[in-house]
Amino acid sequence: MGSPGRLLTAAVRRLRLRVGIKPSTAMARYLSTCPPARAVIYDQHGPPDQVLRVADVAPPEIGDRDVCVRMLAAPINPSDLNRIEGVYPVRPPLPAAVAGYEGVGQVHALGPAVDSDYLSPGDWVIPSPPSFGTWQTYVVKPAAAWHRVRSDVPPQYAATVTVNPLTALRMLGDFVNLSPGDTLVQNGATSIVGQCIIQLAKLHGLHTINIIRDRPGWEEAKDKLKQLGADEVFTQSQLDSIKNVKSLLGALPEPALGLNCVGGNAASVIMKFLRQSGTMVTYGGMSKKPVTISTSSFIFKDLSLRGFWLQKWMNSDKAEESRTMIDYLLSLVHEGKLKYEMELTPFSDFRLALDKALGKHGSRPKQVLSF
Amino acid sequence: MGSPGRLLTAAVRRLRLRVGIKPSTAMARYLSTCPPARAVIYDQHGPPDQVLRVADVAPPEIGDRDVCVRMLAAPINPSDLNRIEGVYPVRPPLPAAVAGYEGVGQVHALGPAVDSDYLSPGDWVIPSPPSFGTWQTYVVKPAAAWHRVRSDVPPQYAATVTVNPLTALRMLGDFVNLSPGDTLVQNGATSIVGQCIIQLAKLHGLHTINIIRDRPGWEEAKDKLKQLGADEVFTQSQLDSIKNVKSLLGALPEPALGLNCVGGNAASVIMKFLRQSGTMVTYGGMSKKPVTISTSSFIFKDLSLRGFWLQKWMNSDKAEESRTMIDYLLSLVHEGKLKYEMELTPFSDFRLALDKALGKHGSRPKQVLSF
Repeated sequence: MGSPGRLLTAAVRRLRLRVGIKPSTAMARYLSTCPPARAVIYDQHGPPDQVLRVADVAPPEIGDRDVCVRMLAAPINPSDLNRIEGVYPVRPPLPAAVAGYEGVGQVHALGPAVDSDYLSPGDWVIPSPPSFGTWQTYVVKPAAAWHRVRSDVPPQYAATVTVNPLTALRMLGDFVNLSPGDTLVQNGATSIVGQCIIQLAKLHGLHTINIIRDRPGWEEAKDKLKQLGADEVFTQSQLDSIKNVKSLLGALPEPALGLNCVGGNAASVIMKFLRQSGTMVTYGGMSKKPVTISTSSFIFKDLSLRGFWLQKWMNSDKAEESRTMIDYLLSLVHEGKLKYEMELTPFSDFRLALDKALGKHGSRPKQVLSF
Repeated sequence: MGSPGRLLTAAVRRLRLRVGIKPSTAMARYLSTCPPARAVIYDQHGPPDQVLRVADVAPPEIGDRDVCVRMLAAPINPSDLNRIEGVYPVRPPLPAAVAGYEGVGQVHALGPAVDSDYLSPGDWVIPSPPSFGTWQTYVVKPAAAWHRVRSDVPPQYAATVTVNPLTALRMLGDFVNLSPGDTLVQNGATSIVGQCIIQLAKLHGLHTINIIRDRPGWEEAKDKLKQLGADEVFTQSQLDSIKNVKSLLGALPEPALGLNCVGGNAASVIMKFLRQSGTMVTYGGMSKKPVTISTSSFIFKDLSLRGFWLQKWMNSDKAEESRTMIDYLLSLVHEGKLKYEMELTPFSDFRLALDKALGKHGSRPKQVLSF
């Protein structure tokens, strides 16, 4: 990991031990308050472009066990928007809620009771599990809420590693016992989760059948997914026009696992691809249409339908395991084995980033606020 | 078990051993052909009342390891009708298929190589796993295809113990780890499976919420189910008019398991009753409507949707276990702990029984052919 800051801090620590100096609150690293911050705030639920405001907030106090972090990057995820709208089950209390749920920052100052072996100024940290209030320039949270991550990856990856890549990783492991050579099928394949699924599957020797929506430039999207390692890429309408989708499998085994983030017809086609006793996991509903399944698919084809919510990996009993997986995912990023499209927008242009995330500028990559 | 016939046969066997007489093919019990039979036959798939015919069939030969059984009773199950229609995946080859899949008969004659410790004339036997061709007066199958059952229960129970009661028993065990005090919810509760679920649940200390369809006389149906041990019984329309069905649970815990044999709205209401991370098992689709489920029920409520088909308990590796469960279920019948409504119709009135099973005479209990 060895960032310059880290090495320097470690050197100071060794020196201090050697000359018998005990770390003290008198040192500059220990501040009683964070610098004044600018934050994206909402006082009531509603359309994000109406209820959100960017405002200065008073410098928060740094408690004994707190850490003040200067944010570097934070994404605008659909679930962030759903929280602001008030339609997501887990959301911060109102009024004066600060938006945002994941992100990466740099340790700015520590409370006096924070173990300096655990965190040092300059360290890159992410809230892990993610927690409310990452859309602001400085964030104070207890030290235990922060997970130190490597700083040799682009900050937008550290900022987004939890919600999407971890979802992809867990869905590959939590439902079906997949072995190298097995196939999975997914819709919404151009999403970040979809791109991660393709790459993680490839790393584990799994084949992927990928379904993307019909839109101008789909050939380009197909090529991009193929470059990431996708075995097959089809548009929804290509599949709608084919009676027996399994004829498209060629030499690939029938998929044991299907991943659905769309619903409606796009879920039905996943179920058509699945093998006997296959499992479809729903983790999103972009079409806003429900999943419909015939009785015979349950009885004779023995399909199982499940749901995935990353929240269950955010419980305290899973925190350590999640952090280990996050480290693994960032190591893949570092090695160039995991990548996905994002668009960085300066925090000062928050309104623009929000409008892009809301689709007002057409189809855009994931928006990541850069502080 | 000790039926009079069984005790007599055992006594004969002991006597024979004592005096050193080896069972021989010369004995009357060993015949080379079964008596001529009358059978319900179809040569092509189609509506049962059009394609079925009752005809005499030539006396089949009894092979060395075969057993000729005089049928006593056989039910008309919906899956039998689906087989005749050609819409059920497991069905006999055409032409000259004999209809029927389960039933009970009495051993009439044995092939010479059949171990007389295994079966004796007069024994009650069922095809186990069930197999094609029970709607005929005499049936010849290999000895290993027959399972000896107790003869001190009404024959219509021995005739019907596999398809419906075993489905009920397995669904209580195969999906959710239920403990005494837990609740399950089911629709189609007046079906034989439904009635068995209520009684088996009660025996295991489980509570049942039961949904029945709206029809004249539903209060009477409700009373009957309550007498079998149902905790709560509602009609579909009673539930459709209530916003929060869980307010009806009273002191009962939220159901962990839901059983659906109807589909459509009747499945949706099951899912409303289910607790967080509950499982709904579909084993039928009487409404001919699919199951529809929202994305949020998968993601936030973490529901699992599964299917049950008894066929998986009919594989040879499960045969012994199935037979043990059948013996258990018939012991419950014998003790008066498991009962359900059936209507016996003489085989000579097959057309009438078929019309009743097809619903031409209104709502009737399960039709069982009596030979």
